[in-house]
Amino acid sequence: MPLVKLSVPTHLSDTRVRALADAIHLALVETCDVPVADRFQYVSRFGDAARFIDPNFPGLARSIDSSVVEIALRRGRTDDQKRALYRLCVEHAAAGGWRADDIMIVLTENTLIDWSFGGGVAHYARA
Amino acid sequence: MPLVKLSVPTHLSDTRVRALADAIHLALVETCDVPVADRFQYVSRFGDAARFIDPNFPGLARSIDSSVVEIALRRGRTDDQKRALYRLCVEHAAAGGWRADDIMIVLTENTLIDWSFGGGVAHYARA
Amino acid sequence: MPLVKLSVPTHLSDTRVRALADAIHLALVETCDVPVADRFQYVSRFGDAARFIDPNFPGLARSIDSSVVEIALRRGRTDDQKRALYRLCVEHAAAGGWRADDIMIVLTENTLIDWSFGGGVAHYARA
Repeated sequence: MPLVKLSVPTHLSDTRVRALADAIHLALVETCDVPVADRFQYVSRFGDAARFIDPNFPGLARSIDSSVVEIALRRGRTDDQKRALYRLCVEHAAAGGWRADDIMIVLTENTLIDWSFGGGVAHYARA
Repeated sequence: MPLVKLSVPTHLSDTRVRALADAIHLALVETCDVPVADRFQYVSRFGDAARFIDPNFPGLARSIDSSVVEIALRRGRTDDQKRALYRLCVEHAAAGGWRADDIMIVLTENTLIDWSFGGGVAHYARA
Repeated sequence: MPLVKLSVPTHLSDTRVRALADAIHLALVETCDVPVADRFQYVSRFGDAARFIDPNFPGLARSIDSSVVEIALRRGRTDDQKRALYRLCVEHAAAGGWRADDIMIVLTENTLIDWSFGGGVAHYARA
């Protein structure tokens, strides 16, 4: 169910991007009861003229690799699950060369009826 | 009001993409009381290195044409309206060559005050 | 905190786009208690085959420069703050050559726990 959008700078290698995508998914599986097969991620790349990202707010040190991860998921995860998600995302991504301050994560929630995985069916809320 | 984002693979023709966009809009008009003229859709294309989409979750058979449709709309549609929306999206898209399992749909809701169509005005909630 | 996504047509100059991005950020600072340094904006460009935007709904006159601004922010701003945000966005953008009817704005809200600016931490809701 989570739909994940990664906004990364153009200069990053596919290997680096893949490492972040893998880290996010693994953290979702470990902290938010997401099935391993439930993976839906898109990566968009942005050049310098297409992103305006503060290098320090709020008290961080971002590099040129700074990226944003948006995760849409159904409502219901606890604050503790979300905190663990953030922590494990950066821990797992570190193995792929990512600095913790370069990974910003933003969650958006909806409800069970808001997901159709395909086939024209509301998988989590069938009639 | 709905703002629609289509994430499609790079290899798809503009004709195929347009068929999906038309199908989504028609289904919104038919099921969610959206005026015909109320159409705002953007299409983003993603290569193989920029999307990580499970081919089968949860029990579907996606092809390389698999796409995701995100629809932002104001809160208030019923579960039955949403189920009808999903069904009609894939039914209408079939005429344009789309397999039902290749169309994933995700809804995000907000409220009336959250929409300004232009001119600096909150059209659904004027002061 | 706000995460801002600008969807603009391909033909616009970087200068024009930057003027819109600056206007949006300034309006957020002035109306929604956003710190000046709290700026996170991404710009995506769309050609004619990748956007289907009604030129008039609901009673506006859009040009080929018509753009959409999506703003994700935490819940809590009042209706009056949002109305002021819309008005100031178009007022500030006018200085950069933007017509008011070409700026559509859509808000999406989440909560304090939904933001990690980096470092694996929930900045607004620490444990």
